[in-house]
Amino acid sequence: MKVAYIQTRPKFGEVERNVENAVSKIETLGAELVVLPELFSTGYQFKSTAEALELGENARSGYAAVRLIEAAVKTGAFIVAGIAERSGASVYNSCVLVGPKGFIGLYRKAHLFSNETVIFKKGNTPFKVFDVGVAKVGMMICFDWLFPEAARSLALQGADVICHPSNLVLPHCPAAMITRCLENRVFAITANRVGAEERIKGAALTFIGSSQVVGPNGTVFKRSGRRVESGTVDIDVTLARNKKINSRNDIIKSRRTGLYTL
Amino acid sequence: MKVAYIQTRPKFGEVERNVENAVSKIETLGAELVVLPELFSTGYQFKSTAEALELGENARSGYAAVRLIEAAVKTGAFIVAGIAERSGASVYNSCVLVGPKGFIGLYRKAHLFSNETVIFKKGNTPFKVFDVGVAKVGMMICFDWLFPEAARSLALQGADVICHPSNLVLPHCPAAMITRCLENRVFAITANRVGAEERIKGAALTFIGSSQVVGPNGTVFKRSGRRVESGTVDIDVTLARNKKINSRNDIIKSRRTGLYTL
Repeated sequence: MKVAYIQTRPKFGEVERNVENAVSKIETLGAELVVLPELFSTGYQFKSTAEALELGENARSGYAAVRLIEAAVKTGAFIVAGIAERSGASVYNSCVLVGPKGFIGLYRKAHLFSNETVIFKKGNTPFKVFDVGVAKVGMMICFDWLFPEAARSLALQGADVICHPSNLVLPHCPAAMITRCLENRVFAITANRVGAEERIKGAALTFIGSSQVVGPNGTVFKRSGRRVESGTVDIDVTLARNKKINSRNDIIKSRRTGLYTL
Repeated sequence: MKVAYIQTRPKFGEVERNVENAVSKIETLGAELVVLPELFSTGYQFKSTAEALELGENARSGYAAVRLIEAAVKTGAFIVAGIAERSGASVYNSCVLVGPKGFIGLYRKAHLFSNETVIFKKGNTPFKVFDVGVAKVGMMICFDWLFPEAARSLALQGADVICHPSNLVLPHCPAAMITRCLENRVFAITANRVGAEERIKGAALTFIGSSQVVGPNGTVFKRSGRRVESGTVDIDVTLARNKKINSRNDIIKSRRTGLYTL
């Protein structure tokens, strides 16, 4: 199947612009699974929860969700995209999974990074896998990469592909995602953004790009630099269902759960 | 504290030679913690369990253990070294921790790699941390690197330094150990061997060297190439006791155990 990431440069607060740019791109890719960055529709650096609530949207009926579903219907693609998700009086750093038949699933970021802990409510959605037919899809967001339990939870539930919307500013994640793929024998699609934001004075953030597609053997099929671009890769998701790395080691069955302290 | 790895090129079956070479080296290093490779005293590629039993030794009273303890007494160092451990009718791929006061601890490899599953008995020692005063020491062996639960179990029990005797033949571990250090904010000392063995025809193994010392921020303080050599690094183990990566994220306390499926 053809998978893709779209590496964007959103303008903070310009939801319509950011969403329409992404939708236009999705329509040109011809991919069956597309991953967009974390908070792709709003930008990253909220000054307050109130601001995030104001720009945030419902995961099923907000502008971003509706337009992504329309793009999915039009192209036949499954799409994972990060949004500021308003739910009642709360706002989460979430991502949605939508497809040609509409809304499929929601993931609310479990491990909030730094100032996000002030802005967003902590995620309350257990790591979960969605079987969309062409692949079993898991979702995690940005900083979740640092916690091996995130990708492990998805792999143990049968994820073929981990979709990983991100707004990375630190350098280590692209290499670490190779470890995540090797240790779980899964594919991972990290969609990061580029550009910079300094909406909070003295707290300038520069996003590292480096969006990538990595395979179960740790192969980096594609990795971007620091400009706006997309990457597409043809992958065979069934490779992620064979957890054997040699005739004697299945990396899931070889686990020694009785010896761990977790 | 000064820590070290010794990257060796053992000759298969020449236990006395291999041990004496290592002991001589330990005596020159002036390190407080020294890590030797997996199966440093025997070599790696056993043809049968019978052969491993024959070359294997008791973890406390065997030739390797006795000489390592003598070296520890003489130098004041703590030493972690991989041995073929004979215990009754069983043989384990183990490592010992010894110090100036003698034998301290034993770890039997939990995740046996490939043909090791035929030769050795599966380890039955839970991942455990030994507080030796100058540091809290955890042990894992080679292929354990692929299982995030190994290093995680040690970190959650308070390990400052993960001692990692290895006989690596595949390329991914040195980079993956950076991930292990980052995700757990620990130091890791991987001591690998160099050279090649082909005692089983058609199953030639070339060991990759690349022994290294990595810190809690993912810094590679030292990494060797593919020749016999040692590496020493001065580390501040207390850095591993601060799990905060910023004012809002303690990477242990930030775990969301209720959302994982492990």
